Amino acid sequence: MQVYNYDQLFTFTKNIFLSIECAEEDATVATEVLLSADLRGVDSHGIARLGGYVRLWEAGRVNTKSQISILHQTPSTATVDGDAGLGLVVAPQAMQIAIDKANNVGTGWVSVQNSNHFGIAGYHAMMALPHDMIGICMTNASPLVAPTFSVERLLGTNPICVAVPAGNQPPFVADLATTTAANGKLEILQRKGEEAPEGWIQDSHGKSTLNAHALKTGGALLPLGGDREHGSHKGYALGAVVDIFSAILSGANYGPWVPPFPAYIPMPENMPGKGIGHFFGALRIDAFRPAADFKHHMDSWIGRFRSAKTAAGYDKVLIPGDPEREIEIQRRKNGIPLLDVVVTDLNTLGARFNIQL
Amino acid sequence: MQVYNYDQLFTFTKNIFLSIECAEEDATVATEVLLSADLRGVDSHGIARLGGYVRLWEAGRVNTKSQISILHQTPSTATVDGDAGLGLVVAPQAMQIAIDKANNVGTGWVSVQNSNHFGIAGYHAMMALPHDMIGICMTNASPLVAPTFSVERLLGTNPICVAVPAGNQPPFVADLATTTAANGKLEILQRKGEEAPEGWIQDSHGKSTLNAHALKTGGALLPLGGDREHGSHKGYALGAVVDIFSAILSGANYGPWVPPFPAYIPMPENMPGKGIGHFFGALRIDAFRPAADFKHHMDSWIGRFRSAKTAAGYDKVLIPGDPEREIEIQRRKNGIPLLDVVVTDLNTLGARFNIQL
Repeated sequence: MQVYNYDQLFTFTKNIFLSIECAEEDATVATEVLLSADLRGVDSHGIARLGGYVRLWEAGRVNTKSQISILHQTPSTATVDGDAGLGLVVAPQAMQIAIDKANNVGTGWVSVQNSNHFGIAGYHAMMALPHDMIGICMTNASPLVAPTFSVERLLGTNPICVAVPAGNQPPFVADLATTTAANGKLEILQRKGEEAPEGWIQDSHGKSTLNAHALKTGGALLPLGGDREHGSHKGYALGAVVDIFSAILSGANYGPWVPPFPAYIPMPENMPGKGIGHFFGALRIDAFRPAADFKHHMDSWIGRFRSAKTAAGYDKVLIPGDPEREIEIQRRKNGIPLLDVVVTDLNTLGARFNIQL
Repeated sequence: MQVYNYDQLFTFTKNIFLSIECAEEDATVATEVLLSADLRGVDSHGIARLGGYVRLWEAGRVNTKSQISILHQTPSTATVDGDAGLGLVVAPQAMQIAIDKANNVGTGWVSVQNSNHFGIAGYHAMMALPHDMIGICMTNASPLVAPTFSVERLLGTNPICVAVPAGNQPPFVADLATTTAANGKLEILQRKGEEAPEGWIQDSHGKSTLNAHALKTGGALLPLGGDREHGSHKGYALGAVVDIFSAILSGANYGPWVPPFPAYIPMPENMPGKGIGHFFGALRIDAFRPAADFKHHMDSWIGRFRSAKTAAGYDKVLIPGDPEREIEIQRRKNGIPLLDVVVTDLNTLGARFNIQL
């Protein structure tokens, strides 16, 4: 484990993005989005994936000079073509369109086709907060998840983020994969050689397994709930909603046809759409009630939940967004720890472009 | 168990609503909404609750002559005052406003304060389908659910419904409580004297319990996921989002202050808002892409998932909405079975108003 400060990682990452032909402004945004995952403790989605994005560029699967275009729109909606760009660049542009529409008519809703992985959903949804808007963000992703009763991997971990502004309290930010556990958590167990808890994954026969490596032998992640008795049909339904909003509304690929993030995995055959899909929403608070009133009650909501009586052994009840915000404060101050294997990867990557970490 | 045909239950229920001073049109809608739960197999939310609505009226907690009003609006949003009406009447009116706005500017979003329980979320969301729109519906509800790590009941089962039109396939309708199991499922176990599965409920100390009666002694329903290791913080976050959209946006009561459905439970003290809250959304498909294209791909999505390879012991992979639709076909044909205890309640209710079941 080595610790780096944010600015150091920022310079390195931005230089890598510049090296793969991103424009100055795009490289800055892509870096900010990618590293927001490291700051917030979502290590699986941060700089550890930088090499993955570069490999997609090398494979010709990503256009780092993307210019998005609006395919269709109404006062409150838009369908955006991401021009095969980096999701890290396309997503903030699409979210900005949602925010602009919310400014005009109260809410804005943008479905995006022809994009790529966009880092953490939280970054994009949280763009709404300084505008006194609620931000919503979702995306489909590489198929790793089996619907309830199935042995086939037909959905991604399809996250949903909802960011809500408050007044004196910090914002409420729910950012969740629609699976029991995000793939990144499974990867941590794999690296440590530990077993997975019951209800996270199934084997190739659809039987629950503790083997953290089961995905390599035809297994699958399980929808939130784990099994039917514990509500996995609900996690499956939520993941399906994300897929539909992100891809069927926009014309992106869906279900098992979502292009895989690892560049070495071949593209699916007979793809029904373009790239991967995202969906963004912005709701202006004062399109419903004065923002000050809303924030007053949001503070009261947060205060009541945070001070709820806890079960024995637990310190406090968390508000969605609390853990990530606390990690960000700590990491901005003390630096961002990177696993040795990640540092090695970054050094190899840097060497190719003559960039020093 | 006795079986009644739909028309018979419709006439009875409508006459009860007329007896508690609903206008003709309101009585018709309230009956249609309430019985849609019985038709779709959600027995806990149907005619079994008719007496509960009557008792709310007797307690002066429901205004059966409600006239809703729009407190604030923009082209894509509205905040509605439900005038303390029956949710069964207020909700379809609010959803209609969302649909009208979607017709005008692509989407419509309506947050409702000062309402009461609205039956099943599915009915209202599905109102969007004939308009080639996606319908969304959520509501907060009586506090029965403990946030992760807490022993206090601060959230309702706070359901979310998303209804999506398809082409040749029947629509996709995900209608889910944000808890591991809906309260109605627990009530069935209580009546049968059976234990609850692990992960559904906790006791008053916050320990997982199989005792289906634990809610009567300070226990709580658990958010979808069951415990932290299985993602209950996600179920909690989703339930919280429903509470915020339904009540903090609208000015209704939230969290532990949501008025209880059973009229014998006293109202909470220091209530911060008015009544219970709902949230409705309508998205016009052709505000994103031509409806025919969307439906073609929605059919392809449904076809792919429905034909997915199953795990041993399972017949087929279900599409959200399949079980309810199949029950509705059956019950429209063969009648609606009611438990003896429900029939007895209805007969008592009917006797008071001189109405024959």
